[in-house]
Amino acid sequence: MEHLEGRQSVLSALQARQRKFQVILVSHGAHMEKFEDVLKLAEEMGVPVKAVDRKELDAMAHGQTHGGMVALAGAKPRMSAEELMEVLDKLRTPPLLLLIEGIEDARNLGFTLRSAEALGAQAVLIKKHLWDFDPVEVARPSSGAYERLPLVQIDTVDPLIVLQRRGMKLYGCVAGAKRTIYDVPMTGPTILAIGGEKRGLSGAVRSLCDRFITIPSAAEATSLSLSHASCIILAEAMRQRLSQKAFPAPLEAGEPEELPDPSSP
Amino acid sequence: MEHLEGRQSVLSALQARQRKFQVILVSHGAHMEKFEDVLKLAEEMGVPVKAVDRKELDAMAHGQTHGGMVALAGAKPRMSAEELMEVLDKLRTPPLLLLIEGIEDARNLGFTLRSAEALGAQAVLIKKHLWDFDPVEVARPSSGAYERLPLVQIDTVDPLIVLQRRGMKLYGCVAGAKRTIYDVPMTGPTILAIGGEKRGLSGAVRSLCDRFITIPSAAEATSLSLSHASCIILAEAMRQRLSQKAFPAPLEAGEPEELPDPSSP
Repeated sequence: MEHLEGRQSVLSALQARQRKFQVILVSHGAHMEKFEDVLKLAEEMGVPVKAVDRKELDAMAHGQTHGGMVALAGAKPRMSAEELMEVLDKLRTPPLLLLIEGIEDARNLGFTLRSAEALGAQAVLIKKHLWDFDPVEVARPSSGAYERLPLVQIDTVDPLIVLQRRGMKLYGCVAGAKRTIYDVPMTGPTILAIGGEKRGLSGAVRSLCDRFITIPSAAEATSLSLSHASCIILAEAMRQRLSQKAFPAPLEAGEPEELPDPSSP
Repeated sequence: MEHLEGRQSVLSALQARQRKFQVILVSHGAHMEKFEDVLKLAEEMGVPVKAVDRKELDAMAHGQTHGGMVALAGAKPRMSAEELMEVLDKLRTPPLLLLIEGIEDARNLGFTLRSAEALGAQAVLIKKHLWDFDPVEVARPSSGAYERLPLVQIDTVDPLIVLQRRGMKLYGCVAGAKRTIYDVPMTGPTILAIGGEKRGLSGAVRSLCDRFITIPSAAEATSLSLSHASCIILAEAMRQRLSQKAFPAPLEAGEPEELPDPSSP
């Protein structure tokens, strides 16, 4: 049984309908108005809600950031490779998958999932033998993406071979590759592979890559973090995909700028 | 006086030659070979090195990650707007600056600086009244960029007006802008402005923007974090700048792939 801490995490998990909820705990004296959307959805889904002392929540939670709400629920289920194939079969657009390897930090994983969802990846494959991430630490920076995005844990490269047989191109991001991320087409079915900062991609994944690509960067600087490197590559995939569609042409220089309402965020 | 924790942070700060060092503390019994580069540079620069009990370092440091080395040094100096102008005058390429507003988390700032340096920004402007970041928390994720990259703290938008008068374009990244980051030219002198996740850019900065731009993203997903959004925009600026140069053309489909040595990272 896992904890979900804070209104946003609980709401995202309820909406994603992937976990089995046991109970939602709300602290005595909390402003119930701010939980209205959660409580309504919990009632619809038949999830019990219980009022408890705030101290009880504090003892359960990682810190003070739960804001008066903690849920007990089963783990977010990971998707099997077979289920992934079914999802891909139903897509109307060429699939875009992110494969990450050698990630150890739960927070980095959370940010990576958030970017992957925002930039249109349909699933994230994580090559890892043992799934030892603290789920609260993954969930918080992911801003709900951890609950919604299909995650496939792979232990061997066999699922990659299957995906390649189905026509997907596997691009491995490695330092020193001759091609940049701007030199390969990502508009077709694409898997973008990126390794941890210490060791990069494993030999097993490298041996399968159709192309190696690199992100151009300033020579004297340090490297990008895994989560930042992956969001740059995914953004490039989205750019290529959007430029294929009827995308508005850039305005001419000097053409008057139409400003959005400054009061909106 | 600030602490620098760990060999990498101390080395980066020594190399950047921006801080005034008081002393470098090394724990008794540490393997001195791994500190060789730091000790050599410290000697060259006349910074004293002192051996102390490991417990003393533990008490001083944020955690156990100092690895047996802590330095005491003056704060990393921030650059004045006037100094920035001098730096920009000496550049041989059109300047690229990042302006961030509403950033509160030191770790996010550290990652943002790391990406900004890696993606070719010459300086980062931070609009903030009070500079209340924990320097250790900024330094660690920045991987040395905090020490090397010029940081300019601005309290009003006056320096932006000066920069615009000098021919720089100010692009504000806001949700819902009609133009995307791919629709504006960033090959000229450019300031990319991005606001915090809660409030976005302030009215004062918005009122100066030459263009508003947005990062295309999946409609149903959450937004990107500030550090991830800024690295995507900076990467786009680098892409545009590189594509102006004699950049190798993409290989033809079917052209044999030349693989880098799999043993290299």
